[in-house]
Amino acid sequence: MKIIIVGATGTIGKKVTANLKQDHEIIKVGSKSGDIQADITKPETLKNLFEKAGSFDALVSTTGVGHFGPLKEMTAEDFKVGLHSKLLGQINLVLTGQHYIKPKGSFTLVSGILSNDPVADSVNVSTVNSAINGFVNAAAQELENDVRINVVSPGVVEDSPELFEAFPGHIPVSMDRVVQAFRKSVLGVTNGEVIEVW
Amino acid sequence: MKIIIVGATGTIGKKVTANLKQDHEIIKVGSKSGDIQADITKPETLKNLFEKAGSFDALVSTTGVGHFGPLKEMTAEDFKVGLHSKLLGQINLVLTGQHYIKPKGSFTLVSGILSNDPVADSVNVSTVNSAINGFVNAAAQELENDVRINVVSPGVVEDSPELFEAFPGHIPVSMDRVVQAFRKSVLGVTNGEVIEVW
Repeated sequence: MKIIIVGATGTIGKKVTANLKQDHEIIKVGSKSGDIQADITKPETLKNLFEKAGSFDALVSTTGVGHFGPLKEMTAEDFKVGLHSKLLGQINLVLTGQHYIKPKGSFTLVSGILSNDPVADSVNVSTVNSAINGFVNAAAQELENDVRINVVSPGVVEDSPELFEAFPGHIPVSMDRVVQAFRKSVLGVTNGEVIEVW
Repeated sequence: MKIIIVGATGTIGKKVTANLKQDHEIIKVGSKSGDIQADITKPETLKNLFEKAGSFDALVSTTGVGHFGPLKEMTAEDFKVGLHSKLLGQINLVLTGQHYIKPKGSFTLVSGILSNDPVADSVNVSTVNSAINGFVNAAAQELENDVRINVVSPGVVEDSPELFEAFPGHIPVSMDRVVQAFRKSVLGVTNGEVIEVW
């Protein structure tokens, strides 16, 4: 299977890549590193990405940023950070990628537990994660040629100890469980699922 | 109670306004009509709105548009329609309005059933509605001075028969139930609730 991984050098992306590359062809995509460079906030660079990559079986996204900060100081510009990167950036991968993916292929995006269980300063990311889950639910009903789409929604992961203090009472989830969620989406049959790893 | 209603001339807004004005002071806000004009996609006009309105007890939003169209033809620009209007536009009302609202005041936004139950061509609106629900859930935990925030999520409403064909199998909901949901948010004590009227 030919799998494009966007965000392959991130905390989650590198573990997902290490796992999937054991038995699949991987094309790593990053903004500055990887086999192909692309900026998810610039749809025109994504067309170039897919032209270079050629037709593929699965796209995995573990990328995108949001804004963390107190609601009382937040501005529209702050809010656009997450809307244009983690949300619309990942959606752009689907909007453009749907024209290049093979029949029966799959898209797997990433959201996170903050959609359901906010922490202090997470309003932007909570909103974005909720939006990604809603997008996947709706897009699964419209993608053609039996293409599937799912989203992995992890809790705070054990490989991000720097975040533990900001997530009081959250139980860090193992990287292996997160990796298995991506494998379920890519190699399984589920469609339109928010795969919660909490 | 002094209540600002943004979108007071829309299908839902005019019924909510007619109800609340029986026993409250209403300030109607529209992009071109109303007591004060403001554009929710332009935060600088919102500062002007709240300066003119003065401190208030409740803000009700029944405004914002999204993009309807097939996923396979959708572009990033199409997607931004809903992100910048119905989503960020309503959020802008809260980001700016939080600095003018009275203690124990309330914000009430609008989303809709498509977050949970998509129809054909609804991917953008389904995403936006999910995002609004997520925003309210998170923002409720950060608003200060006992200010509350909720969102009314109506199904297709009986006053929009032109939409019935696009919502096959959906049972239109009565305007009275929708109006009562707004009354619950404004006059009740609930906080962080997605008030589903389905």
